[in-house]
Amino acid sequence: MISTSSVAKASNSAGDSASKKFVYSFDEADKSMRDILGGKGANLSEMTKIGVPVPFGFTITTTVCDIFVNKSEYPEGFAEQLEEKLELLESKMGKKFGDPHKPLLVSVRSGAAVSMPGMMDTILNLGLNDETVKGLIEQTGNARFAYDSYRRFIQMFSDVVLGIDRELFEEALEKMKERMEKKEDTDLSGKDLQELVNEYKEIVLEKSGNKFPENPLEQLKFSIEAVFNSWNNDRAIAYRRMNNITGLIGTAVNVQAMVFGNMGDDCGTGVAFTRNPSTGEKVFYGEFLMNAQGEDVVAGIRTPMPISELEKIDKNAYDNLIEIKDKLENHYTDMQDIEFTIEKGELFLLQTRGGKRTAAAALRIACEMVEEELLTKEEALLSIDAKQLNQLLHSQIKIGAKRDVIAKGLPASPGAAFGKVVFTAEDAMEMAVDKNEKVILVRKETSPEDISGMNCAQGILTSRGGMTSHAAVVCRGMGKCCVSGCTDIIVNSGAKKLLIGDLVIKEGDVITLDGSTGEVMMGELEMQKPELTENFKTIMEWADEFRTMTVRTNVDTPDDCRIALEFGAEGIGLCRTEHMFFEEDRISLVRKMILAKDADGRMEPLKKLKTVQKDDFVGIFNAMTGKPITIRLLDPPLHEFLPEKNSQIEKLASEMNMTFEEVKDVISSLGEVNPMLGHRGCRLGITYPDIYKMQVQAITEAAIEVSSNGGKADIEIEIPLVGKVNELKVMRELVQSTILEYGDEVNFDYKIGTMIELPRACLTADEIAKEADFFSFGTNDLTQMTYGYSRDDLGKFVPAYLDQGILESDPMASIDQEGVGKLMQICIELAKAEKPEMEIGICGEQGGDPESVFFCHKLGLDYVSCSPYRVPIARLSAAQAAIKGSA
Amino acid sequence: MISTSSVAKASNSAGDSASKKFVYSFDEADKSMRDILGGKGANLSEMTKIGVPVPFGFTITTTVCDIFVNKSEYPEGFAEQLEEKLELLESKMGKKFGDPHKPLLVSVRSGAAVSMPGMMDTILNLGLNDETVKGLIEQTGNARFAYDSYRRFIQMFSDVVLGIDRELFEEALEKMKERMEKKEDTDLSGKDLQELVNEYKEIVLEKSGNKFPENPLEQLKFSIEAVFNSWNNDRAIAYRRMNNITGLIGTAVNVQAMVFGNMGDDCGTGVAFTRNPSTGEKVFYGEFLMNAQGEDVVAGIRTPMPISELEKIDKNAYDNLIEIKDKLENHYTDMQDIEFTIEKGELFLLQTRGGKRTAAAALRIACEMVEEELLTKEEALLSIDAKQLNQLLHSQIKIGAKRDVIAKGLPASPGAAFGKVVFTAEDAMEMAVDKNEKVILVRKETSPEDISGMNCAQGILTSRGGMTSHAAVVCRGMGKCCVSGCTDIIVNSGAKKLLIGDLVIKEGDVITLDGSTGEVMMGELEMQKPELTENFKTIMEWADEFRTMTVRTNVDTPDDCRIALEFGAEGIGLCRTEHMFFEEDRISLVRKMILAKDADGRMEPLKKLKTVQKDDFVGIFNAMTGKPITIRLLDPPLHEFLPEKNSQIEKLASEMNMTFEEVKDVISSLGEVNPMLGHRGCRLGITYPDIYKMQVQAITEAAIEVSSNGGKADIEIEIPLVGKVNELKVMRELVQSTILEYGDEVNFDYKIGTMIELPRACLTADEIAKEADFFSFGTNDLTQMTYGYSRDDLGKFVPAYLDQGILESDPMASIDQEGVGKLMQICIELAKAEKPEMEIGICGEQGGDPESVFFCHKLGLDYVSCSPYRVPIARLSAAQAAIKGSA
Repeated sequence: MISTSSVAKASNSAGDSASKKFVYSFDEADKSMRDILGGKGANLSEMTKIGVPVPFGFTITTTVCDIFVNKSEYPEGFAEQLEEKLELLESKMGKKFGDPHKPLLVSVRSGAAVSMPGMMDTILNLGLNDETVKGLIEQTGNARFAYDSYRRFIQMFSDVVLGIDRELFEEALEKMKERMEKKEDTDLSGKDLQELVNEYKEIVLEKSGNKFPENPLEQLKFSIEAVFNSWNNDRAIAYRRMNNITGLIGTAVNVQAMVFGNMGDDCGTGVAFTRNPSTGEKVFYGEFLMNAQGEDVVAGIRTPMPISELEKIDKNAYDNLIEIKDKLENHYTDMQDIEFTIEKGELFLLQTRGGKRTAAAALRIACEMVEEELLTKEEALLSIDAKQLNQLLHSQIKIGAKRDVIAKGLPASPGAAFGKVVFTAEDAMEMAVDKNEKVILVRKETSPEDISGMNCAQGILTSRGGMTSHAAVVCRGMGKCCVSGCTDIIVNSGAKKLLIGDLVIKEGDVITLDGSTGEVMMGELEMQKPELTENFKTIMEWADEFRTMTVRTNVDTPDDCRIALEFGAEGIGLCRTEHMFFEEDRISLVRKMILAKDADGRMEPLKKLKTVQKDDFVGIFNAMTGKPITIRLLDPPLHEFLPEKNSQIEKLASEMNMTFEEVKDVISSLGEVNPMLGHRGCRLGITYPDIYKMQVQAITEAAIEVSSNGGKADIEIEIPLVGKVNELKVMRELVQSTILEYGDEVNFDYKIGTMIELPRACLTADEIAKEADFFSFGTNDLTQMTYGYSRDDLGKFVPAYLDQGILESDPMASIDQEGVGKLMQICIELAKAEKPEMEIGICGEQGGDPESVFFCHKLGLDYVSCSPYRVPIARLSAAQAAIKGSA
Repeated sequence: MISTSSVAKASNSAGDSASKKFVYSFDEADKSMRDILGGKGANLSEMTKIGVPVPFGFTITTTVCDIFVNKSEYPEGFAEQLEEKLELLESKMGKKFGDPHKPLLVSVRSGAAVSMPGMMDTILNLGLNDETVKGLIEQTGNARFAYDSYRRFIQMFSDVVLGIDRELFEEALEKMKERMEKKEDTDLSGKDLQELVNEYKEIVLEKSGNKFPENPLEQLKFSIEAVFNSWNNDRAIAYRRMNNITGLIGTAVNVQAMVFGNMGDDCGTGVAFTRNPSTGEKVFYGEFLMNAQGEDVVAGIRTPMPISELEKIDKNAYDNLIEIKDKLENHYTDMQDIEFTIEKGELFLLQTRGGKRTAAAALRIACEMVEEELLTKEEALLSIDAKQLNQLLHSQIKIGAKRDVIAKGLPASPGAAFGKVVFTAEDAMEMAVDKNEKVILVRKETSPEDISGMNCAQGILTSRGGMTSHAAVVCRGMGKCCVSGCTDIIVNSGAKKLLIGDLVIKEGDVITLDGSTGEVMMGELEMQKPELTENFKTIMEWADEFRTMTVRTNVDTPDDCRIALEFGAEGIGLCRTEHMFFEEDRISLVRKMILAKDADGRMEPLKKLKTVQKDDFVGIFNAMTGKPITIRLLDPPLHEFLPEKNSQIEKLASEMNMTFEEVKDVISSLGEVNPMLGHRGCRLGITYPDIYKMQVQAITEAAIEVSSNGGKADIEIEIPLVGKVNELKVMRELVQSTILEYGDEVNFDYKIGTMIELPRACLTADEIAKEADFFSFGTNDLTQMTYGYSRDDLGKFVPAYLDQGILESDPMASIDQEGVGKLMQICIELAKAEKPEMEIGICGEQGGDPESVFFCHKLGLDYVSCSPYRVPIARLSAAQAAIKGSA
């Protein structure tokens, strides 16, 4: 028992046992040391190593950051090492910190192992003070340049180190220009700027209570501390969370001698890509400005020139640059994003890193680099971000289009779309089909009744539900964009309007959805159509060469089968039979079956349903001939099939020769408090065996017909929601005996197995395996049960959890390896001990998520299955997992 | 992949490796061999061994049954052993099977290791045929007796072995009496009965297509087979399921020489208990009939005499019987239930077994046997069925009262009650409080809004919900009887009636509920009040000497604390703070808090709520002073606190200065599809930290006040529904910092921990343990998530699962050791590896279930916690677990 006096505090002891070397000069390290030097530092060292001209400097390791952040102190020996490396830098440059004649000026930059905006970025010109500024004038003969550098340094330092509002400095600058009646910064004289420096210092004194630190060593120490502290600022934490960056211990700090692109017309600066980052074309691509600092290129006050122009201005520097960019690309065997500065005709590289690129560019570069023998196929496959393929598979908002974001929800199904807002499935059909309008269907949440309306909408927006809500799953299946769980909006279907704060959007107003980001925008944004290139096909072929897991798809109709096959699906991992129940001609049969008073009354509608389901299966079996097809028997609770609106209930009552009250009573008696935990899955099969029997008959008759006509049906009949082996035992007997009733007619292969979607199924998988020919992980439900999250309700707190970093990622989007993953592992171990050769796959929606695919590969699954539009992503991810796994 | 031709069939190989001895004579075995000889057989052998007169015979083992049932064959060597034992029996008795002069007649009886009605029971007089019947006449000189025995044998054999309707034989008997113009069976002559035997044989031929088997060996083999086959008949399976009998491999068969109590006036038969089974008083208790067979005592055609009368009729036999009953009770050290027969003045025991008794008798016998030094305290404690204590703690329907059962639900809270049916909480209050009527509240399901109505009802009946539904949990807490999940009834609250098939019950009609069996009866049944005797106190004291687990209670009010303390609770394992929110004066504050637009608006109602919650806590802390108190912070989703009815919504709107629509909108926006998986528990605490902060302030201020006034508050603050360590980390910081705001004032001990109720919490318990001072298993929710069952909805399929044997027991009533138990074990192992000394208990409702208490003891839990009325059961169970565990 603890008393109030003993409040324990968790202490992070990382780094205690790490190396004792805390500072590396650029000539002491290489690119392999990214973990402790950060990406920027490791690459500066690497460039130094391979002879690329880089201003000299040193890097303080991430270990120092880790210790500083957690213990508020520096490790023993750090101060001495810093001093030593600083002296080395001074001697290399022939300059000294604080020297009034030849002062050393440096930049201080952060740099973690992974590129990460949000941390303190850059301080330039560090080392300037009232004395050294004179030395700079002495060296350059340019007082204006020197004082401009000085005032920029004070402003940057005050902003990022002292936290003084940069606006105050901007105001002082503006006032100075007014006073001097000058229009541009560049019109100010050296003397003006010198006066401005003094004004800046007064601002510092007033706001911070201290004088601006004139001692360059103090300036440096403050700056290093500021970098370290920025590691855990809100923006940096948010960025790491949003990008799933985990496992880093801190940022490194790079201290580098300054070179100036703004000392005169023989100076300049620029950024470039070794290939075109939009298209992937092998052309040198970038821009530069003469007599400018790096920030000027980005700021857009002056228009930079295309990189090719440099040849005309400074042929020598240009030739050098070309040589270096080729050297870098060949050395890194990847398209590089570089920054350079020319100081008085001399070229320096300030940074190189892998260049960000579009999906199209990534594919082209990968293919061409293999042709150029720069990369092996394996390396080429690993160079592509599988998630990025979504860009190629769905319409996107044109890059650069202005986004007037009015709300943000979950990125539930990728792609983008615009259309007129409608609030009911009926209105969607009327406007889309009858009036040929593009519509966006907006609902609190969707239900199977909305399918037709969803089908003819361009995109779906819901205020509730998570990444595996009905809307999300159905849209991914349809390849349609969806933003779900958008808690910013209040949907009032009755009044046909939606509210976002004070903004009212009415039926017919146009909005645009981005299902890849979750953004909702006012008006119509320009779109970019998807296209599948030759490069895409090449990459997919290579992926298929290397992957060891099969990739199946989750589809319910022959049409979807065809789309999935085009994307390379090798079978069906999940065919949800209930989706067939919702089509116009069946739903009334289904309702009649449900409303029947007893098994006898169910006979007739069941018989008719069997006929239509058989036809559905024939279509699917023909489309997928020869490929394995997992068919899940009826899963959702029966009340999902009954109408909710009084008008529909009345209609149904008259069809059924029942009173309105009677039908209402049945609906109410079937209602459930927590339908997700209710009377569904095999619980239905056990209490209404005639429904499952009908489905098995339909499957059997379809398989016989297809096989008799030269096709090959390879069927896996799946019993959903088994938690106890007895359930599967009883259902297996039902399925088996139903099929055996067809005797010698049975001319196809089949298995009987179960979806693993309850924690209890995982925990007793050895028992369940005895009755199963296969397992398929239903990780949607498994995640719901393991976390106790409802896919329909998690929109209420999961966004807050993500914001606060309580969850690193949405467990519905990517398998929670720590919790759900542990259950999967327990399940597989128990099952394989019982049946070593049993087929085990996954059909949860995470089957199309690259990280989850990696995890499934590690678990040794036989296949992953996902919606058709995610099949290419799964194929590539599976290949990457296999390549990494065997490396 | 299997093809249709290879249908695997699970084969049960139990018994293959068992002993090769399949038949034991009564002089070869003893009572320790119950598993293979069954209870009856083992006791017949034991009596033989200790010199009690028993007709000789032999027992066929349960192993033979197991093999026969699963393989439809007898084990090798069985036939030879059977023959050998039969020969031994013949030689012992000096009679022979089929001998026309001195025929051997036997009885054949089933008997498993546990007493089990439903199986084939008894065949008497086996060995009679047209030849041997003459031998019987020869031996007894009584043709009437011989043919009566013969026709009884044919009837019994035909019924149980051949499955011929016994009515046919009764009809033939009636016709014979008519023809002979006789009134009673006993008026028929030997000749009449001989003719009847022939008629019986014709019935057999006609109905079975075969002649009645005259060969005694064949008769025996058929009978043995019939016993074995009855092991898996529906009634036997249902009985095993209902009584949680698992792990048995089959039944034994006892073949025993016949003795006759109906050969004349020097013969007789009877049944008796060595002590009074109703009161436990130490008096010989039973009844007998002279010149009768055992079935006549039971049949009630003749009125049996009290056992004491036997002394007058046959002093010798009576003295013998007294001596034997003392010998048996002392030998078995338990009250015995015996059957005896006197054949021509000679006394034979046919059975002895532990006698069934009431709870009051069990306690008295246990206490007195310790006084008599027949039992140790440990043995006395083990002799009591802990569940039976319910009889003493709640009103019961008087034993023997006629039950007109009209429906059956789940036995959700023990005890019994009658009253007038009402359908709303309001009506309950009006009738009970204003009109002083006894009422039974009937609802589809109850919600926290119904609490006041439930409180003044005698009992609750719901058509939905399981053993841990709201109604069940609240009623157990109140010690009030409840039948839940009664799917037989349709509740129409609007029309104030309920339907059971065609039966309509209206408001005001009287029904009786038995919450221990789940039965609903028409009308008012006579009741028996509970009483806590001295024996009860003695047993509880002894239990406390031996148990190692602490027993706490789940209570929310000072009144309940007092009840629980009387029952021996040693602390509070679960105090649900939200129950305090529902009282009349708070609910409007809670609603104001929920409807507030922002944190500022919540301030005022929160402040007021803090004051009332503080008072509640002061009451509880004072009542429980010095004992540990686990307080769970707010758990249910907020919408549970909002009204459902339009009239109440209107009232609230006017109180809040809001429009009806606005309030309705908030209610609708807070609504959830699956509230059990929704925005509740710590998810509320994280998104509305001010609510938790208020609760912690109320707890702290109450603890300071109580401690300052000489009390001792020992507080455990519990964060509900943690699935990920980050949740607990954030909440721990909130709780900790809130308490620390009180600085030096804090004068009490506290811990901060969590309820373990999500599978993910178990799987990551090592991580969570780092932030927890204690764990408490919330097995209600843990079971819901592990199985994917909603406590509110499982009434729809769990009864069917129990009926079909898919579930052996309701996992909400008794911990599912295989699934949920495995998660608990994983949790404990991970947590103890991190914090070996951490306190771990259970507060799920299973904490009051004996089997679950045993399991918790095995897991090494520190305490169990249950509703006040189950505390005595938990104390006794914990003692039994400790005694068994250390044995």
